[in-house]
Amino acid sequence: MYKRKILIGTDTTSGMAPQILEAISEASKTRTLPYGNDIFTKKCKNIIQKIFEKKDLEIIPMMSGTASNSLALSSFLRSYGSVICHSNSHINKDEGGAPEFFSGGGKLLTISNFSGRIQVEDLIQKIEEINFKKKMNPVISGVSISQLAENGTLYSLDEINALSEICKFYNLHLHMDGARFTNALVAQDALSPAEATWKIGVDCLSLGATKNGAMAAEIIIFFNKKLAREAKYIVKQTGHVLAKTRFVSAQLNAWFKDDLWLKLAKIANKNALYFRNKLSKFDDFKFLFPTQGNELFIEMKESTYQNILKLNIIPNLWCKANNDRLVVRFVTSYETKVSDIDEIIKRLEYLS
Amino acid sequence: MYKRKILIGTDTTSGMAPQILEAISEASKTRTLPYGNDIFTKKCKNIIQKIFEKKDLEIIPMMSGTASNSLALSSFLRSYGSVICHSNSHINKDEGGAPEFFSGGGKLLTISNFSGRIQVEDLIQKIEEINFKKKMNPVISGVSISQLAENGTLYSLDEINALSEICKFYNLHLHMDGARFTNALVAQDALSPAEATWKIGVDCLSLGATKNGAMAAEIIIFFNKKLAREAKYIVKQTGHVLAKTRFVSAQLNAWFKDDLWLKLAKIANKNALYFRNKLSKFDDFKFLFPTQGNELFIEMKESTYQNILKLNIIPNLWCKANNDRLVVRFVTSYETKVSDIDEIIKRLEYLS
Amino acid sequence: MYKRKILIGTDTTSGMAPQILEAISEASKTRTLPYGNDIFTKKCKNIIQKIFEKKDLEIIPMMSGTASNSLALSSFLRSYGSVICHSNSHINKDEGGAPEFFSGGGKLLTISNFSGRIQVEDLIQKIEEINFKKKMNPVISGVSISQLAENGTLYSLDEINALSEICKFYNLHLHMDGARFTNALVAQDALSPAEATWKIGVDCLSLGATKNGAMAAEIIIFFNKKLAREAKYIVKQTGHVLAKTRFVSAQLNAWFKDDLWLKLAKIANKNALYFRNKLSKFDDFKFLFPTQGNELFIEMKESTYQNILKLNIIPNLWCKANNDRLVVRFVTSYETKVSDIDEIIKRLEYLS
Amino acid sequence: MYKRKILIGTDTTSGMAPQILEAISEASKTRTLPYGNDIFTKKCKNIIQKIFEKKDLEIIPMMSGTASNSLALSSFLRSYGSVICHSNSHINKDEGGAPEFFSGGGKLLTISNFSGRIQVEDLIQKIEEINFKKKMNPVISGVSISQLAENGTLYSLDEINALSEICKFYNLHLHMDGARFTNALVAQDALSPAEATWKIGVDCLSLGATKNGAMAAEIIIFFNKKLAREAKYIVKQTGHVLAKTRFVSAQLNAWFKDDLWLKLAKIANKNALYFRNKLSKFDDFKFLFPTQGNELFIEMKESTYQNILKLNIIPNLWCKANNDRLVVRFVTSYETKVSDIDEIIKRLEYLS
Repeated sequence: MYKRKILIGTDTTSGMAPQILEAISEASKTRTLPYGNDIFTKKCKNIIQKIFEKKDLEIIPMMSGTASNSLALSSFLRSYGSVICHSNSHINKDEGGAPEFFSGGGKLLTISNFSGRIQVEDLIQKIEEINFKKKMNPVISGVSISQLAENGTLYSLDEINALSEICKFYNLHLHMDGARFTNALVAQDALSPAEATWKIGVDCLSLGATKNGAMAAEIIIFFNKKLAREAKYIVKQTGHVLAKTRFVSAQLNAWFKDDLWLKLAKIANKNALYFRNKLSKFDDFKFLFPTQGNELFIEMKESTYQNILKLNIIPNLWCKANNDRLVVRFVTSYETKVSDIDEIIKRLEYLS
Repeated sequence: MYKRKILIGTDTTSGMAPQILEAISEASKTRTLPYGNDIFTKKCKNIIQKIFEKKDLEIIPMMSGTASNSLALSSFLRSYGSVICHSNSHINKDEGGAPEFFSGGGKLLTISNFSGRIQVEDLIQKIEEINFKKKMNPVISGVSISQLAENGTLYSLDEINALSEICKFYNLHLHMDGARFTNALVAQDALSPAEATWKIGVDCLSLGATKNGAMAAEIIIFFNKKLAREAKYIVKQTGHVLAKTRFVSAQLNAWFKDDLWLKLAKIANKNALYFRNKLSKFDDFKFLFPTQGNELFIEMKESTYQNILKLNIIPNLWCKANNDRLVVRFVTSYETKVSDIDEIIKRLEYLS
Repeated sequence: MYKRKILIGTDTTSGMAPQILEAISEASKTRTLPYGNDIFTKKCKNIIQKIFEKKDLEIIPMMSGTASNSLALSSFLRSYGSVICHSNSHINKDEGGAPEFFSGGGKLLTISNFSGRIQVEDLIQKIEEINFKKKMNPVISGVSISQLAENGTLYSLDEINALSEICKFYNLHLHMDGARFTNALVAQDALSPAEATWKIGVDCLSLGATKNGAMAAEIIIFFNKKLAREAKYIVKQTGHVLAKTRFVSAQLNAWFKDDLWLKLAKIANKNALYFRNKLSKFDDFKFLFPTQGNELFIEMKESTYQNILKLNIIPNLWCKANNDRLVVRFVTSYETKVSDIDEIIKRLEYLS
Repeated sequence: MYKRKILIGTDTTSGMAPQILEAISEASKTRTLPYGNDIFTKKCKNIIQKIFEKKDLEIIPMMSGTASNSLALSSFLRSYGSVICHSNSHINKDEGGAPEFFSGGGKLLTISNFSGRIQVEDLIQKIEEINFKKKMNPVISGVSISQLAENGTLYSLDEINALSEICKFYNLHLHMDGARFTNALVAQDALSPAEATWKIGVDCLSLGATKNGAMAAEIIIFFNKKLAREAKYIVKQTGHVLAKTRFVSAQLNAWFKDDLWLKLAKIANKNALYFRNKLSKFDDFKFLFPTQGNELFIEMKESTYQNILKLNIIPNLWCKANNDRLVVRFVTSYETKVSDIDEIIKRLEYLS
């Protein structure tokens, strides 16, 4: 019936921001040395140092979010070690076993709860449970949290602060999967990137630009520089050093320029709130979590979901809920048009 | 003295061909599903099937040459296995141990010789030597050759045929590192891609576009489809599935379109011959190998090399030769300007 | 107060049965080829074939239970794969990440419940949950169960049958950790080893003799011979082929001779029942599970546990329970003397 | 013709010394905690500290020589690293890729020469060659030498000293594969174990008892204690912590007691010299190396080798030599009887 398919299930269906494309085009005109020894990558480091207000850090530009997370984790996760994360985290459920592979057998120890975020009590309990039989269990090397969390909610500063206190107490490293870090950042007014990361104890951040305007650009930022010691070897050995690294760095440089990254994320978040507001009138839609970034999680009847597909609206099927109901995810991006949201709403009205 | 630095040591200093940039720009306008489920990638497979005259194959678009080689090798190299290759091959000397990592400990068994190409007698001898103490030695799983070879020379059809006969006899797989495959292909007039690969026994090809016009695009082609069985899992687990895979496939599609790949390689090769011709008048320059693709290997005094650097000409320092002489590599690409070559020659005349 | 320390927390504190020692002594008198090419190992295979009523199987004698489990699992668990097991299973909690290491990053997916055994509904739910998002999740390769289960209870024939039906349906392999398989076997009267394993769908069994009379002897039995294809290489590469393999096989041969393995396990089980009966009079001791093999799990106050230690009785501290209570494990073996059990009871009476 | 088969190709065909068997028997009578927390293992450390005149060391008792080497190497060899060794070394040719596996992909860089021992010039050249292209090549982490070398010859103190100087200069670790260390030690009169190892710069020693009187006992000695930091986790994760570790330590304790290890090695060496002396009268036998330990390497016609087998004498077929000649190894042990050597000579006379 509706010919035009509307993809609204993930922000990775987007293209790239014009500024990023322009930067790629510019980078193509320059001859530079390959494998990261180029001026774009040097500039990228300077930018990061300024934005994150820290001289003493190390960066690695990447093209893949999975690799960015795994390489960051492998800076402290050994084969006999383990990392505590949420059971729904991307590293545990959506990266095909990459953290385990990069570490040669390291283990993810998971915490499950409805909030979608690791709580202090959960963390302490998990650590104590493992340490109880220390000799046999995998060594705990660190903790990984996602900001935005995998269910689209936000870790508050206090939450992260509390977790990092625990990490310090038990001598654990703290990694942040920041695939949607910028959406989280702009959702917390007047918060600086530094305050949102290393100032509250984050050791390394896998910051993603791909979902927020870039073609394929991620960056690992080691605030704790010691962790970067072996990283350059592992990034090479895993095939993630590109011959023409400059094209990644050029994307990142344009992304940071004139606050583009923040502007794009703000649009995405605003679109999500607009969308949620419009959707709230449908009775069968049960919102599961507060919408703090650019993701909506809605519980609905399986038949409703099937009907939505028939309307040529393509959200993301998230998981099963009880009583044959489903959880369905809608994601907005900087590219999402208000007219498309309105169009979706119009089509959905057809269902009622 | 000369202000402008001329980078002439590798083809990876190049940018990208305008057609590739145009394709990336176009791809940015489309919304498609992520992680390879897009129309660009589907189209890419069709193109490969046509160009290589084979329906029954599998492809994986990649962004990194190192990863492309290692993933191809891991399709038959197990942790307890080994692959025979030339000691100067890229997989052995320049990929930071990636084949060993991807296979969880597989071994490269190397053959050394001046020709830069594995000879049939070398191969048989190596296999027999290993099989002599079969129980203890690593299992031999396959052979990897580079076309162009690492010293810029060409495996003839007869050479590859003979090697693949040996492979068949011993039940080994044959991989081709085709980082400069196109340069090799156009150097052999009237040879089809099929005749240069699977028709003479190549099981899988790591075909590179990055050095020949693309931004970051490689493709693994499994002519022996069985080898692809586990590849999709490993490419995911090693972090080489991009969210926006379409941008890789779009590059490849443009690269193949209207024989662009062949045209670019022809220019690169032609530039190399022009360059060699011009260089041949300098007495201290001893050409080590025939120039069959886009690479020149020149033995010279260490002082000569130092002087070249002072002229702001930047070739690639390859290795030491005897008597304190050095081997220096010059590489041309589709981007190399004849005027730049002439400029290099002019500067070099200053040396004499 | 009590000078003599009584170790009652695990069956690995035992020595070896006289018949095993005698066999080692005999094996020392023979000269044979090393690395498994000896007559003892050949004989061992014949014995296993007879006892398990199956010609078409493969065996690997081992010295370590952890290695025996991991090598068995690695026969079907790839780096990108996963194995479903109970959260309390030895492979998940007590083997230092060995299954993950042997597979280069394979994942254990765990099921938690009070029964200590994987239930059919749990298994189906876990598989369906993983398969729901098939593309991203680790491939499920198989299921591992422990017989005796980690809490000392017995999988019934029906339970295993039901699980193996599910495995067949989903095309998964079924591994059995049989560290205490013999205790389970003799607990089920008139059950043959074949009926307890491959006849109900077990693909491979890690059978342990160490806890039941041997010095250090385990054996992997591949009922599904295909799974053994790569095993000999991996057992070598992981350093588990002993030069003098005959000393492992000799232990096993003596262990199987004249039903020694069954006799020893019967004594251990009988001791456990005797012990439980005696312990049941103490009010603070809450038995958590039926005693079907040679293990007792008792919940008690933390202070009670501390008092037990002061009596120089050393059980195994298992885990924490609610309200600051502890779970404590007592294990009997073929070596446990009734007089020692009586002595323990006498000491414990002092507590009341 | 001759019914009795005489195995003379390796010292691993031997049984165990009576004192070792007695020690195993004694250890069986004691109840102790499992997994290395036993009094035998504590005692073993004390013994090693005394014999090697060093308090500040760490030990790990093992049952497999391959695992002992690989675990020692993994203390400094990372996945992206490499170890320089002789091309004929056991770790490179006879351990099924174990060092590569334990390190998750580490590389062995080999040096070939006739002497069978790494020479200072070879080592410097190899290091310089690798460092020449530092960015791409595997990081060099250390050097491994075998004492006795793989061809049965002895590294002199001066040779080792010179190598360890180079190691210090380049900041590399030095490992010694001491599978036949004792044969080397007793061949150098009045040399103390300390003088033969850490006093000349050896960081860790994989000392083997299995070939010299034990059933299955090896020990890793970390003279450089820092290297042991992760070892306990890796030994667990690779399945090399035995439940009843005491049986390994008990063997070692008996082996060291009253200089048994030295006495047994002296007998083996003496047997080798006696054997060589007797063999020297056969014209077709060309001795390849001096006999400094318990191994003889003889070049002979292939037909001669075949005839020897027909006499039911079983040496070890080592490798091919030129002109269809073979290299055949004979190894004596503490168990070799002079009467057996005489019997071999008698049979061989039949050939002439």
